[in-house]
This record gives sequence, structure tokens and C-alpha cells, in this order.
Amino acid sequence: MKMLELDTPVLLIDVDVLDRNIALMKGLTEAAGVSYRPHSKTHKSTVIAQKQIDAGAVGVCCAKLGEAEVMAAGGIDNILITTPVIGESKIFRLLNARNQVRVTVVSDNEDNINMLGRIAQLGGRQLDVMVEVDIGQGRCGVPPGPEAARLAQIITDHPNLIFAGLQGYQGKIQMIEDPAARKADTETGLDKLAATLAEFDQTGVSVPVKTGGGTGTSPFDMERGLLTELQIGSYVFMDSRYSGIGWPGSNAPPFEQSLHILTSVVSKPVPDRVIVDTGLKSVSSDHGPPIIANVDGRNYEFGGDEHGIIHMTNYDDVPWNVGDKLRLIPSHCDTTVNLYDQYMVVRGDDVVDVWQVDTRGRVQ
Amino acid sequence: MKMLELDTPVLLIDVDVLDRNIALMKGLTEAAGVSYRPHSKTHKSTVIAQKQIDAGAVGVCCAKLGEAEVMAAGGIDNILITTPVIGESKIFRLLNARNQVRVTVVSDNEDNINMLGRIAQLGGRQLDVMVEVDIGQGRCGVPPGPEAARLAQIITDHPNLIFAGLQGYQGKIQMIEDPAARKADTETGLDKLAATLAEFDQTGVSVPVKTGGGTGTSPFDMERGLLTELQIGSYVFMDSRYSGIGWPGSNAPPFEQSLHILTSVVSKPVPDRVIVDTGLKSVSSDHGPPIIANVDGRNYEFGGDEHGIIHMTNYDDVPWNVGDKLRLIPSHCDTTVNLYDQYMVVRGDDVVDVWQVDTRGRVQ
Repeated sequence: MKMLELDTPVLLIDVDVLDRNIALMKGLTEAAGVSYRPHSKTHKSTVIAQKQIDAGAVGVCCAKLGEAEVMAAGGIDNILITTPVIGESKIFRLLNARNQVRVTVVSDNEDNINMLGRIAQLGGRQLDVMVEVDIGQGRCGVPPGPEAARLAQIITDHPNLIFAGLQGYQGKIQMIEDPAARKADTETGLDKLAATLAEFDQTGVSVPVKTGGGTGTSPFDMERGLLTELQIGSYVFMDSRYSGIGWPGSNAPPFEQSLHILTSVVSKPVPDRVIVDTGLKSVSSDHGPPIIANVDGRNYEFGGDEHGIIHMTNYDDVPWNVGDKLRLIPSHCDTTVNLYDQYMVVRGDDVVDVWQVDTRGRVQ
Repeated sequence: MKMLELDTPVLLIDVDVLDRNIALMKGLTEAAGVSYRPHSKTHKSTVIAQKQIDAGAVGVCCAKLGEAEVMAAGGIDNILITTPVIGESKIFRLLNARNQVRVTVVSDNEDNINMLGRIAQLGGRQLDVMVEVDIGQGRCGVPPGPEAARLAQIITDHPNLIFAGLQGYQGKIQMIEDPAARKADTETGLDKLAATLAEFDQTGVSVPVKTGGGTGTSPFDMERGLLTELQIGSYVFMDSRYSGIGWPGSNAPPFEQSLHILTSVVSKPVPDRVIVDTGLKSVSSDHGPPIIANVDGRNYEFGGDEHGIIHMTNYDDVPWNVGDKLRLIPSHCDTTVNLYDQYMVVRGDDVVDVWQVDTRGRVQ
């Protein structure tokens, strides 16, 4: 089947491009001597997680327990849940996932650590727990300084908990366009993590893993060498925001766009406007509108839940007609993937496979 | 089970409030002598569609063929698909849905009408087709004037097509806050529809249905009396944008907020900040961030895919702790519902049912 025969809107992965991105990141991390644990919140797919592990990733990250449950059931071993798991009901679910594969969870709260320990003890099992440090995101995480070492000591002292390391992650600096500014912010954050690590020297508690970073900061994270595991996610797909950032030593990141939305023109009421069948429910808007692949200019504007409106900036008339199909590049890959149940996998112009978006909607 | 025992984030409907909204709209349309055909793109639920039909709605609207297929399979009769259905594959699917229940589709394109007729003829069946007129949205729809009558004649002339009426809808004026400005824009749009209708006087083609309007413009649509069917959608749930618009003769719309997201505090790293487990993947951002129910001020800010960050505007310290649960009011009900697989149905503080979001993700 040919890609252009697909009903639209539909989420496409070009598998050759995807594989090239995975191989490239493997090479970069290997050369830098750092482990990588890709964040599966980007792709939500056990097939892609397995590809990343086959290429040498130590495991994957999940943002939510519900994602980890699906990944574990899909045979993905060694999962880090990068946000706190709160409340008895969820901690019992965590323990159940831990029965199937190795699952580590982060925490920034003494009461939560005690509950993790108590429920792990009830189940007679060991649970790996990391401490999250806020290195600038202003979200979860203990402030940099002695509190992380205090929580690590509580984890270490509990017979059913294992202190697994420190997480320090900043999502909001990943897409700073100027690479020098992005590098400076990366360094500032890692300085905070280093200051926190210094507190551990007096406690005798060792820190097995330091995890964080993302696609945008990965060159600077590798150069600094403080993080032992990188949580890179978007490099597998890229999006219009990520592809627009500067990269050290070149104009653009070395990863290619493997993810698109195929959309159809459904109306051309006047010569200078077409309407496509992709709106707020089929491409995310949180980082701005999508752009049209292989076309100059940013012509797409949202036309409600189900439509996009395209006016050309450099033509009098729009060069498409009703029924024509275009590929869109989303502005934010994570939230766009989350709107779909499947990927249609293509190789060039041919459809070659279908993959489930396994953890779509697993927000609990 | 109590609402506060639910794992979060979770989509809640208060069924008593929902039922009051449905009863209120029934009363308003009945008093105005206008039919209503609620737009199911808001709720995506066959249960709610059936409630609306039980309360006197003539049927429902669907935005996409895929939604109509699910509604038809769920026994919802008399569906209007409010966007063009383009291409052979989809038109064959449309004919299949038409085998099950009455389905009407809109069109604004002669080639599309001819293809609808040809495929209906192949299947030996009749298909109801409306003509869409652009009354100001700048999206799909023929320009106001004679073109609509020309397309209606083509539909009428085809042995397998039935001309079902005119659609004129403007989504973007529904949430204009000032009711006088909203009324003026409603009138301007309806004037364009009236001008188009005048073109029909010379053709002998009668226009059985004039459909359009939404929750925001409904008082003015009812007053004008030109539309014979209203496509109101958001009144069943409301959201923070809709509840903030002015209403003729009062400060606020008469519909109540029946839809919430229950969210948990998952981190309180410092006294003046809490992090909740609801982010871009569990509440939509296209109309802005959600607000916290029963709390003054707009304190929620997005903290990425999975988190919200809450600082108080009028307190030094945040009055919640890790594990506490809060209700959020989304800024846009349609796109938020589209992120979930189920509604948890509550009556006051008690969970009383679960309903599927049947047409979630049915964007094709």
C-alpha cells in the first residue's frame, strides 16, 4: 500500500529515518561514555522502546506509572518513572509492575518514601528509589543542598528500599534556540546538581546514577560528564521546535524528522485558501501550529478542533486542490503522538507496518 | 466509592448538573420554537447523545465520519456530519454508516457532490446532502451568494442525492465576551445566510433545514429565528472560557460546570508551590490553562506534559499538601475530553457510573 492511499489525518513514522536517529544517538553517547535511557513519553511505543534498548539503551524512562505498567507488560525491562508516585493505590500498582520487571521511581518527599518502604515491606520486596533535585525547572524536586542527602539516607536506612541515585532534569531549557545560551543554562543546572552531590561526601552514601538531560542539552551534558544517564526523548522523531534550535558547530541538530501527519485538503472555497482535515484534535498546539513539510513559510493556522486553514505567503493562489495530501511537521512531538492510537509505519512512499501507541492516555 | 478515592488525573462528570444543563437547553429551544441537534464533538459519548435525544434533540452532529460510525453503531439515529467527507474510501464508509441510521453530510464542492452521487448510485441508495455556506468563519463553505443554490440544484438533480438544507456556522464568535458584540457578529453572519437563501427564491429549490449556531450565540440565534436547527455543543459541560462570557440580561451563561478533572498534589518542594499530576497530556491548553474550582485566582500554570504548577496569588503558602486532591475546570471542554478514554460519573461526592468517551481519537 502506498502512503498516499491512507485515510487522513494519520500519524506517520518513516522507519529508516527513525532507525538513523536511534543509531546516531547510540554513537554519540558511546563516544561520550555516557549511558542513555530514552524517555518513552515521546513515542509511547513498546516497539520503539525495544529498538532503543536493542541499540544499547540501559532501559527507558516513563513519565507515569500507567505508562510503566504497559511497558512492563510489553516486556520492556529496566524502567525509571521520572515523576513521584503518590498514594497507596498507586504504590501497590507500582509494586505489581516491579514484580514483572525492574522499576525505579523518583521521590522528593519523606512521607512518600516512608509509604514506598512500608508497602514494599508488606509485599516482601525491594524497591529502587531515586531522589529528585530541582536544578532549575521549578517543578518537583528538593531544592539543591543537603535535603537530597537526608532523603537518600532515609531510603538507605529502610530495609526494603535501595537508594538508586539522583535525578536533575530541566525540560524548559531544552528548546532554547541559541546554543551558547542553552549551554550556559545547562551548566547552571548541573552546577546545582554538583553542589548537591558534594553534600553526599560527608554521609558515606554513594550515588550510583545521576540522571537527567534531554535532546536539546545532550551535547553539553555529554561534554560536562556529570550525568551518568541521559533521558533524551525527542531525538527519535524531532519536531518543528526542536529542528529550529542551533547546535554546537553547525546550524541545526543532526537528527532528522521521522514523524509526520498526513493530512488531506477537504475544501478549497476560494483560490487562495484550502482547508485541511487536521485541527486541535489531531495535532497539538501547545508549542504553536504545525508546519507543512517541504514548503517554505509557516502557512498553517488552526481552524478549530478538526481543521487547519492554509493561506500561502508567497503565492497568490494555493497550489493544492480538494483531495490532495500534504505532510505536516508537528510543533511538539510528545503531545501530538498522545492524540493517536496508531503509527502507520512507512519506508519512503510505502506503508510497511502498523505500531500501536501503547501508552496513549495512560496519564494515571 | 467516593470521588476522592479515585486515582488521578481523571475526568469527572456530575450527572445531576449535566442533566440540568440538558433540561435547560430543551426548555430554551422549545420556547423559541427551534430544533436542536447537539454537537457530539464536545462529549464524544453515545450515552450523552442518547440523553440529549431523549430530551427532544432531533439527532446529533458529528465533526468527522469516524465519529458518526461509532455513534451509528451505538444506536444514535439521525446524524449530521458537519465537515466535508472527501475521497472514495471515506464515501464508501459513509454509505455503510447510512445503511445503519440516517446520516446527512455537508459539502461545498461540485466534484465532491458528484462523487457522493456516483457512489450512492453504485450502492443503490439515497444520501442526504447539505450545502455549507461560509458566513464568516473563513473555513469551509461556499461564499455567500448564488453558488450555494447552484450546488443545491446539482444535488437535487441527482437521482440518488437529496438536498437537505444549508449549514452556516461560526465557531470563532461563540466565545466573544461582550454579549452586544457577540450579538452583532451573529447578526452579520445570519445576514449572509439570509442573502444566500434569497438566491433560492428564483430556483424553486426549497431549503428544508438551516443549521448552525453554538452555545455562545444561541440566545441571538433563537431571537433571529432564521436557523431551524441549533448545533449547540458546550452547554452540556461548560468550561472556563465559556463560563466567562456575558449573557443577555445577566452576568453569566445559565449553564453550570458539569465537567472537571480531579488532580492530585504530587509534590510540595517548598511551602509556596505545589505540583499536580495534570499537564498538557491530561488537560488541553489551546484556550489557556485550566482554573482551580472553588478557588479565587488563576493559579495553575502548565509544567510540561504531565504536571501543573500552582502558586497562590493571595496567600504566602499554598494551602494544600502532597496527596490532596483538587478539581480543575478546563479552558476548552472539547479538546480536554478528547484526551481521555472514560468519564467517571459522580453525583455529588459519590462515583455512580463509568461512561466511555466512545469517539475519542476518531479523527478520520
